[in-house]
Amino acid sequence: MSAHISQQFNAELDLVRSQVMTMGGLVENHVQSACTALVEGDVALAEQIVDDDFKVNALEVTIDEQCTNIIARRQPTAGDLRLVMMIVKTITDLERIGDEAEKVAKMARELAELGESKEQYTEIRHLGEHVRKMLHDALDSFARMDVESAIHAAAEDKQVDEEYEAITRQLITRMMEDPRSIQRGLNILWAARALERIGDHAKNICEYVIYLVKGKDVRHVTLEQMKKEILK
Amino acid sequence: MSAHISQQFNAELDLVRSQVMTMGGLVENHVQSACTALVEGDVALAEQIVDDDFKVNALEVTIDEQCTNIIARRQPTAGDLRLVMMIVKTITDLERIGDEAEKVAKMARELAELGESKEQYTEIRHLGEHVRKMLHDALDSFARMDVESAIHAAAEDKQVDEEYEAITRQLITRMMEDPRSIQRGLNILWAARALERIGDHAKNICEYVIYLVKGKDVRHVTLEQMKKEILK
Repeated sequence: MSAHISQQFNAELDLVRSQVMTMGGLVENHVQSACTALVEGDVALAEQIVDDDFKVNALEVTIDEQCTNIIARRQPTAGDLRLVMMIVKTITDLERIGDEAEKVAKMARELAELGESKEQYTEIRHLGEHVRKMLHDALDSFARMDVESAIHAAAEDKQVDEEYEAITRQLITRMMEDPRSIQRGLNILWAARALERIGDHAKNICEYVIYLVKGKDVRHVTLEQMKKEILK
Repeated sequence: MSAHISQQFNAELDLVRSQVMTMGGLVENHVQSACTALVEGDVALAEQIVDDDFKVNALEVTIDEQCTNIIARRQPTAGDLRLVMMIVKTITDLERIGDEAEKVAKMARELAELGESKEQYTEIRHLGEHVRKMLHDALDSFARMDVESAIHAAAEDKQVDEEYEAITRQLITRMMEDPRSIQRGLNILWAARALERIGDHAKNICEYVIYLVKGKDVRHVTLEQMKKEILK
């Protein structure tokens, strides 16, 4: 590749990467706002997230197209090609995170309609904050292509899962004590589950970073194996 | 591209496509077996699906590598490139379907331990069969790159969602009547939700087929728009 072509390629790639960060920022904002809407019973905020999901989808379509065009026109070498392929995967996960944030917003709306009780909202707020931070760190490791921070962010998924399990257990106990709380309890469960899935998607992004930098496929190994293999 | 290179490219692409069908067949089998394990309380079958998920994951990694290698070495034209990119997306969804089938299998195990009641099992069997058929049709439309059958398969997702909603309503009623059934009811709900998500992933595959053949992005439009735009 001539220096000129290579410069164009790099400029295009930088643009795509900055768009991924824009998309990531938007999605992170949706996750945070959806949790705020739920905890504060803010129906207008919930509606806004549902209405704005099309923006996330539009960004995915645009970036996806750009990636295919870059490959077709620039015919990048194996290393650069892997980066573009990794971006395509990353935006798929970001788009799905947007969908999950939308689900949380819908549950926020339903819960606001069901009324007053705020039980388990503290736990949901903690889980939401944890997941949002995990997503933020995953995007940060993407921006810097930093394996170590990717591994740390991915490791958070275990705590997220534990928090989710704890909320589930509390809600089941609560529903058994008072069957009238079942409808409300299920809505909180769906919201908690959506947050837990956001953690999974953030972990996927971390794994793409590790895979790209280290050239090892860590998508289907445990975190212990990952640490052992990569941080040695 | 010379005829010789083009022949090699086509041969490699045919191999990858047949591997996608192998992966699809394996995943379809897992979905079906997981539902059988649940309805028949067959713990051994459930264990086997959980143990075999690594095969699905391994196929994803292999096919993903092959796709990147094909792009790097053959530098396909825009049309062929889109096909390869679409295969990469398809196997991501197949892998996630494998994960959801594994979840159903785990719920089957838990339900078998909880004991006798088989309420809602008929509905779960119907939903599972519906989703399996939808996945089968999606893979069929992939194999033949047939837009019309892809649209028909994608349209099934609406019925799947309705069946899932009906099961949810029944289970909530049941749990309210008898709080002791909550733990069991939630396990059935998780299984139903996993099946519903399999429908979503099958729909994604249909949309990739439509997008590839028609060159329109239908991933974020409604099915009505899709029919109107594409079957005209």
